[in-house]
Amino acid sequence: MRRNELIERWRVGKPASNCWLMLGQPFVAELIAHQGWDSVTIDMQHGLNDFAEVCALLTAVSATSTVPLVRVPWNEPRDIMRALDAGAYGVICPNVDTREQAERFVGAVRYAPLGYRSVGPHRAIVYGGPDYLKFANETLLAIVQIESAKALSNVREISQVKGLNMLYIGPSDLGLSLGREPRLDQTDPVVVEAIDTILKTAKEFGLKSGIYCRSPDYAASMLEKGFDLVTAASDEGMILEGAALAKRFAR
Amino acid sequence: MRRNELIERWRVGKPASNCWLMLGQPFVAELIAHQGWDSVTIDMQHGLNDFAEVCALLTAVSATSTVPLVRVPWNEPRDIMRALDAGAYGVICPNVDTREQAERFVGAVRYAPLGYRSVGPHRAIVYGGPDYLKFANETLLAIVQIESAKALSNVREISQVKGLNMLYIGPSDLGLSLGREPRLDQTDPVVVEAIDTILKTAKEFGLKSGIYCRSPDYAASMLEKGFDLVTAASDEGMILEGAALAKRFAR
Amino acid sequence: MRRNELIERWRVGKPASNCWLMLGQPFVAELIAHQGWDSVTIDMQHGLNDFAEVCALLTAVSATSTVPLVRVPWNEPRDIMRALDAGAYGVICPNVDTREQAERFVGAVRYAPLGYRSVGPHRAIVYGGPDYLKFANETLLAIVQIESAKALSNVREISQVKGLNMLYIGPSDLGLSLGREPRLDQTDPVVVEAIDTILKTAKEFGLKSGIYCRSPDYAASMLEKGFDLVTAASDEGMILEGAALAKRFAR
Amino acid sequence: MRRNELIERWRVGKPASNCWLMLGQPFVAELIAHQGWDSVTIDMQHGLNDFAEVCALLTAVSATSTVPLVRVPWNEPRDIMRALDAGAYGVICPNVDTREQAERFVGAVRYAPLGYRSVGPHRAIVYGGPDYLKFANETLLAIVQIESAKALSNVREISQVKGLNMLYIGPSDLGLSLGREPRLDQTDPVVVEAIDTILKTAKEFGLKSGIYCRSPDYAASMLEKGFDLVTAASDEGMILEGAALAKRFAR
Amino acid sequence: MRRNELIERWRVGKPASNCWLMLGQPFVAELIAHQGWDSVTIDMQHGLNDFAEVCALLTAVSATSTVPLVRVPWNEPRDIMRALDAGAYGVICPNVDTREQAERFVGAVRYAPLGYRSVGPHRAIVYGGPDYLKFANETLLAIVQIESAKALSNVREISQVKGLNMLYIGPSDLGLSLGREPRLDQTDPVVVEAIDTILKTAKEFGLKSGIYCRSPDYAASMLEKGFDLVTAASDEGMILEGAALAKRFAR
Amino acid sequence: MRRNELIERWRVGKPASNCWLMLGQPFVAELIAHQGWDSVTIDMQHGLNDFAEVCALLTAVSATSTVPLVRVPWNEPRDIMRALDAGAYGVICPNVDTREQAERFVGAVRYAPLGYRSVGPHRAIVYGGPDYLKFANETLLAIVQIESAKALSNVREISQVKGLNMLYIGPSDLGLSLGREPRLDQTDPVVVEAIDTILKTAKEFGLKSGIYCRSPDYAASMLEKGFDLVTAASDEGMILEGAALAKRFAR
Repeated sequence: MRRNELIERWRVGKPASNCWLMLGQPFVAELIAHQGWDSVTIDMQHGLNDFAEVCALLTAVSATSTVPLVRVPWNEPRDIMRALDAGAYGVICPNVDTREQAERFVGAVRYAPLGYRSVGPHRAIVYGGPDYLKFANETLLAIVQIESAKALSNVREISQVKGLNMLYIGPSDLGLSLGREPRLDQTDPVVVEAIDTILKTAKEFGLKSGIYCRSPDYAASMLEKGFDLVTAASDEGMILEGAALAKRFAR
Repeated sequence: MRRNELIERWRVGKPASNCWLMLGQPFVAELIAHQGWDSVTIDMQHGLNDFAEVCALLTAVSATSTVPLVRVPWNEPRDIMRALDAGAYGVICPNVDTREQAERFVGAVRYAPLGYRSVGPHRAIVYGGPDYLKFANETLLAIVQIESAKALSNVREISQVKGLNMLYIGPSDLGLSLGREPRLDQTDPVVVEAIDTILKTAKEFGLKSGIYCRSPDYAASMLEKGFDLVTAASDEGMILEGAALAKRFAR
Repeated sequence: MRRNELIERWRVGKPASNCWLMLGQPFVAELIAHQGWDSVTIDMQHGLNDFAEVCALLTAVSATSTVPLVRVPWNEPRDIMRALDAGAYGVICPNVDTREQAERFVGAVRYAPLGYRSVGPHRAIVYGGPDYLKFANETLLAIVQIESAKALSNVREISQVKGLNMLYIGPSDLGLSLGREPRLDQTDPVVVEAIDTILKTAKEFGLKSGIYCRSPDYAASMLEKGFDLVTAASDEGMILEGAALAKRFAR
Repeated sequence: MRRNELIERWRVGKPASNCWLMLGQPFVAELIAHQGWDSVTIDMQHGLNDFAEVCALLTAVSATSTVPLVRVPWNEPRDIMRALDAGAYGVICPNVDTREQAERFVGAVRYAPLGYRSVGPHRAIVYGGPDYLKFANETLLAIVQIESAKALSNVREISQVKGLNMLYIGPSDLGLSLGREPRLDQTDPVVVEAIDTILKTAKEFGLKSGIYCRSPDYAASMLEKGFDLVTAASDEGMILEGAALAKRFAR
Repeated sequence: MRRNELIERWRVGKPASNCWLMLGQPFVAELIAHQGWDSVTIDMQHGLNDFAEVCALLTAVSATSTVPLVRVPWNEPRDIMRALDAGAYGVICPNVDTREQAERFVGAVRYAPLGYRSVGPHRAIVYGGPDYLKFANETLLAIVQIESAKALSNVREISQVKGLNMLYIGPSDLGLSLGREPRLDQTDPVVVEAIDTILKTAKEFGLKSGIYCRSPDYAASMLEKGFDLVTAASDEGMILEGAALAKRFAR
Repeated sequence: MRRNELIERWRVGKPASNCWLMLGQPFVAELIAHQGWDSVTIDMQHGLNDFAEVCALLTAVSATSTVPLVRVPWNEPRDIMRALDAGAYGVICPNVDTREQAERFVGAVRYAPLGYRSVGPHRAIVYGGPDYLKFANETLLAIVQIESAKALSNVREISQVKGLNMLYIGPSDLGLSLGREPRLDQTDPVVVEAIDTILKTAKEFGLKSGIYCRSPDYAASMLEKGFDLVTAASDEGMILEGAALAKRFAR
């Protein structure tokens, strides 16, 4: 089975970069993957990606070594299993607040006896190789988002769910849930403390940790803090930044 | 009929900015139009836009005052008329080398008796207004690209085609055709001289002038030189620039 | 933030018209919005709309003041939140039978602390404006369908869910559930009585009320009865009516 | 090979109704075909139909006996042959002004030795049957639009092109070209005279005749005049008419 | 209402063939349906079909007597009801393990008073006929997949759910859940015994039985064993088999 | 620039296999390319591929070493250049009958000074590499179809067009044009003689030769005859063959 290059990086102690894909445009995914990002996340929750776009984007990055992750819109087996069957090498589940929710999610990512994922990895076999069924459980990443006060209070319980690989922080929702501003690149002490707690808990339980960042500088600082994966850019952000050039030509 | 804001700007002596759309993604078009570009060009020749994307992108920018132009893939009535019927407020025709070709193109943009455009402006009426048929001939822009040695030698003849509005320069093809490098933001004296000739000819015959630029600085210098419309960015370029951030995180 | 024109109408005591969109065709949405309907409903439950069509249709109506609502296929956060992120200004949830179901639904429409909607309003910010996060909770409409015997018996409890804006009646399902014919424009006394009960309850609890009608005359009578929003036509219905002309030419 | 029901009708002296498809929406095509129209025209010239929509609409009507015609965007073999390969049972070519143009068009519709259509009728065989190649030349309709002053003056020459089946009148373009209003349902004496000339010429040379109408009454009068096929409605027109109901609810 | 030809076959004691559709390609569905398969299954769980493809494929087979079934991605009313509204004549639900789950599923397939399916069969009426609402409950098939150890132990309870029509066996998942190999065309005694138990239980409770097979020979043997419906091929399998020809030309 | 593996094979004296893609389905293309075909042809003339499908299929095969060719619908620069910009490594042009037509075609494939291809290879650079512009003229294949009596009589003239790489035989059209049956795998002596003439002419002028075959055996015999590229299967053919299994289960 094609290796999960994120796992390989972590094995040798290296963190990983991640680029967020909101636009559902295969050529954009291709352009980005060819630039050497360690991983991309196809966002079905807040992005313009539905199942057809997931399939097209997974195809678009398959000529590179960039690892494709999919963020599903909600903790639903229908979406989790379809993303994996299409070739995702990891799934990020938003809004996981309890151990029970985490178990439901991880179970959908794993084949029996570790979980209840249904067998039928059509495109995944083309991408991963003929021995996919044998190695899928150890190769695919199950990632939960910790992004609410409730999740924070349950983070130790959640971390003990067997088969879970990473805690990923969504700073906007986490901030809002803690009664602070819903923003990225948080410097609010209350949110920063929460982030530190989650990071520490991940390390305690042998899990990887990840966080969504807006600015490259903040992302770099998160790597220094010890995160294993930092999202440091998004395709939508690239367009927004570039489009602002209009102001220079306004007259 | 909805005014062509490019014409309005030129009427008061202002030049116009233009952003190139390669990706065929409606939300990208929306993001860009909302940033205040004076115009966008939906590129069917070298971009990922086919007729369906043209329709979607024209719809996406219609809530703004950004003027939508379409570059057709070739000098073919089938594409020119369909772009206009879908609501384009101007068409850029690539590779126009002779007066005869320019006449074929301009005729496809104009209704009789000025041309031979067929009547049936379905979406154009929704976008432009119920009096579209009456004012279309004076509102829509017919733009030819001058981008070969042959076109250069015929530029005065081409400029006299009735109903033509603008000469637009494609620096890559022009450079290559003149035996120089096929690149943007040309500084090669041979190509610069050709650019100056085209600009001067446009002004002599009362036509507007436009040019495709890669860097904002070069685009700004072209405005100073007297161009009426400068393409100063593209959605694909924004992605390429943003995606290069990967290098910072490579380790 | 762009105002919700439905709320503005109701503020000055005016009811609102609504047109149903089944066909998932952006140009159809554009044609209809430009005719001056106060609102449209993009139907994901019984219509041909999936997420891609929702995005395209929301874009298509954004150049007008017509307010776009989305009916989700079922009471699922995945669909509710995605419709809002794409720019819907209200969500209609089918088959809400209990207070608990209504709370689950309304919670998905509202940001914390009123609900649990996840932060990430990509296109919604383009449509609504940069202060979207600040005003979303008071601008977006949460609408439940009362369309079963069970819902009817729970209607007072449902009406007390905080953050709910409207009770909307689905006459076919309501009729069937009450053991009557599953039809629109109900005149069956049992169903009419249920409709009156729902309308009265809405008014008692300060909620708006809405109903799906087939004929314009019935819709007009519902306005007179006191409904705040009446669905008076659908794109599919327009085609069906127009297509029947075939009979005149059959020979 | 599946019979061309238009030819069958004409064989027994009956005229045919035609409904125009602008919207590129398969379910709309299905709804319309099931109402009993004798034929539909998928409009690639002024409608929202590109090749993908042509394929989907041809599939959508294939469960009925409604005969599918395609109007190509221009007199180009690429579009004519692809429409036929996808299963169209006739092609309408716009803007045919000369005998030479008509020959180029008819040749693209017919297999050798009558023309130069390339062999490869993939979906056409599924729709038409395994003996498609044998009967295609006599079953498929080649229809030219007479819609300019030039075409009018060449109409007798055009009518003698071997393999041509019908002269179809586009009243808007014809009117404009004759210096009159570009409108449908023409009553302008100059245009009416032209229409009568075309109709008469068709009959003289044994060709069928057709005309695009807006109102059913006008269409009915054209049938009485002797036309063999009248376009009496369009999907876009149905939406426009239905959407106007908004005015009744405006307050 | 158009008859369900599967029910008709079973009424006269004949079993039925089934072809699996993974590729979401309408023309493929058309080719297959025209070859005379008794039924096809559009697979939304492991195939490339989302709602748009379901609509297109249902349209593609509607000109034939092949009965279209849809396998939904999970036991969710949103997907079950939308497939039926689009014209599916039966739904296969994966991973049904308990009586409660089976009831939730069957309820979504049936109108009140037998279930809670919402009324709004748009395309289903075009396909099924105007009396669809009256006969839907007795014409549409509700099929559950028995494919886990837990389902096996609950199979008698599941079989007693009112309105259920068939037990369908997914051999891969069943094998894996029983601690054996996740493969098709099972010969493992443990799995074979489970298959026999399910088949016997179906017959005992008057239900139909179905099974997914890879090879035609195995499928034929399952017919002899008494299954009422055997899946004997898939579009993806046809491509895989044909593509292997490459080996012959490798040199 | 990524090498053209067809040229590499021919350099070492090996012929190449080719698989035809009619269905426009990216996963099918992926499945086929992963089986090891030397090349695929995306057919825009008789297949279901339009520009969007071409882009998706080119992406789908880019993770393999299979060389992607595109057959354009007709000899039009708009299609030829767009296919190349999207990453095609060769273009097959149908129905080339004269030297002049061949020159028009080859010119559209080559950059100046060899031709008039416009500069703007967006996706082609991602696929081919940053030095694409420098090596494109020697890497991309220009292939003409010889498939008419007229082409046959002009074959020596056509073969002398500079920049042409291959003569490719379409046996159906060739047969029909010669007054024989329009079929594949021709054994008719008249057609076989024509095939031999074309093959011989290709060799005489240093061109490669190719032919479309239906059966593997015929394809193998063509390799023995000396053809450099044989089309030995199509995705549509695989489906047709597999679907015929229905007959075995008919009862």
